[in-house]
Amino acid sequence: MNPNDTPADFRTRCRDGSFTGQTAGIAPGRVQANLMIVPRDVAFDFMLFCQRNPKPCPLVEVLEAGVTASTLAPGSDLRTDLPGYRVWRDGLLVDEPGDIKALWRDDLVSFLIGCSFSFESALIAGGIPLRHVDEGRNVAMYRSAIACTPAGVFHGPMVVSMRPIKARDVARAVAISGRYPDVHGAPVHVGDPAALGIADLARPDYGDAVAIEAGELPVFWACGVTPQAVAVAARLPFCITHAPGKMFVTDAMTD
Amino acid sequence: MNPNDTPADFRTRCRDGSFTGQTAGIAPGRVQANLMIVPRDVAFDFMLFCQRNPKPCPLVEVLEAGVTASTLAPGSDLRTDLPGYRVWRDGLLVDEPGDIKALWRDDLVSFLIGCSFSFESALIAGGIPLRHVDEGRNVAMYRSAIACTPAGVFHGPMVVSMRPIKARDVARAVAISGRYPDVHGAPVHVGDPAALGIADLARPDYGDAVAIEAGELPVFWACGVTPQAVAVAARLPFCITHAPGKMFVTDAMTD
Repeated sequence: MNPNDTPADFRTRCRDGSFTGQTAGIAPGRVQANLMIVPRDVAFDFMLFCQRNPKPCPLVEVLEAGVTASTLAPGSDLRTDLPGYRVWRDGLLVDEPGDIKALWRDDLVSFLIGCSFSFESALIAGGIPLRHVDEGRNVAMYRSAIACTPAGVFHGPMVVSMRPIKARDVARAVAISGRYPDVHGAPVHVGDPAALGIADLARPDYGDAVAIEAGELPVFWACGVTPQAVAVAARLPFCITHAPGKMFVTDAMTD
Repeated sequence: MNPNDTPADFRTRCRDGSFTGQTAGIAPGRVQANLMIVPRDVAFDFMLFCQRNPKPCPLVEVLEAGVTASTLAPGSDLRTDLPGYRVWRDGLLVDEPGDIKALWRDDLVSFLIGCSFSFESALIAGGIPLRHVDEGRNVAMYRSAIACTPAGVFHGPMVVSMRPIKARDVARAVAISGRYPDVHGAPVHVGDPAALGIADLARPDYGDAVAIEAGELPVFWACGVTPQAVAVAARLPFCITHAPGKMFVTDAMTD
């Protein structure tokens, strides 16, 4: 991405298919969002799920049925402006298209959910390096043993993202991310993957593994990929999400 | 109310009809909530309205259709445990019953919305007297000229509550209430009723008028009675609310 590109320029590159990668490190300081699209008949249940699970699912914006332009990104189209999508039927991943124009229906309701990428630039600005950003990789994400609070047809495990943090920086990483409650806020766990039911950090359920070096602790944040794990657990008949790591980049500033 | 009464004791007194007054000053330090009950077919629209208007409508809890017990008040029944209710049809107030058992249906969805009474004890503890509490009256509330952000079938004006605050205490009242973003947070306006479209402070739209004495400013907070003004403006076919000032008293602590 050209450093002079605006978020709108970036969305155009997604729309025309010339950018299909992940968005960590893109447009620093701008709010990025996870996407969950469900039919109207389960939209109340899903909104209730978000209200009851604000750490993994902090609502940034909810669009009315059939609406595809986000108010946080003038001129945007949620059907085309993400680098990649996932289509789920009966809890199974059935497709990973580059746009969802052919699937769009007027009864679909889009939820934008806060993304930890939004606070990563604050961590980096605070002198806390993030290995997956330095390596140009997607953050590592895991289905945890933490059960979300159910709502209507929705239930399932909380997905967490993990970043290796130097022991001396952990407290500061907690403080900095805690200032962003609308994008997952402070970590849900520090240091013990087994306590979260994660057997092997080298094998993430989503995204890319990163090394944990001597003197570092794995730090876990609630993650907006949670709805995808919930779609699986609840065998949701139909939904569309972003592809993990491939977020919707808005014009809004994180601060 | 006996000072040794628990919130559960208080709810029992509402349930058996022995308390029908307003709840300002009741159970200091406990979260009180406004109530809005709508049929399931507009529940998503109303939740979207709350998400878009978090200052007047901060969601404390949303119950699933047909559920009447709040998790914030074990053993509670939302059909009986408030001191008074209002029933609205086609935007008109048609009844003010003491309970809503006869009206209950399995498709009704209850929303509990944060209430400024929850931070009043913090203001009082901070040395900021509140005249309506001292006088045992209901807080004064007004329909303002501030339009809420519409959502689905819901649209209408923001209702504000007003408390006279000594000029020297205004900044501190802002700071203290601002610490409670889940119960309306900081004021939406200080000092100029005309700017809010309020012609006469002595004639509130809900609650009781209070005197504004020399050296005091009228300070306005977003108010959880807003859904009632919205029900009128949107000519909502059917909803049930609390009666203004007669809140649901939970067991939850404000801090």
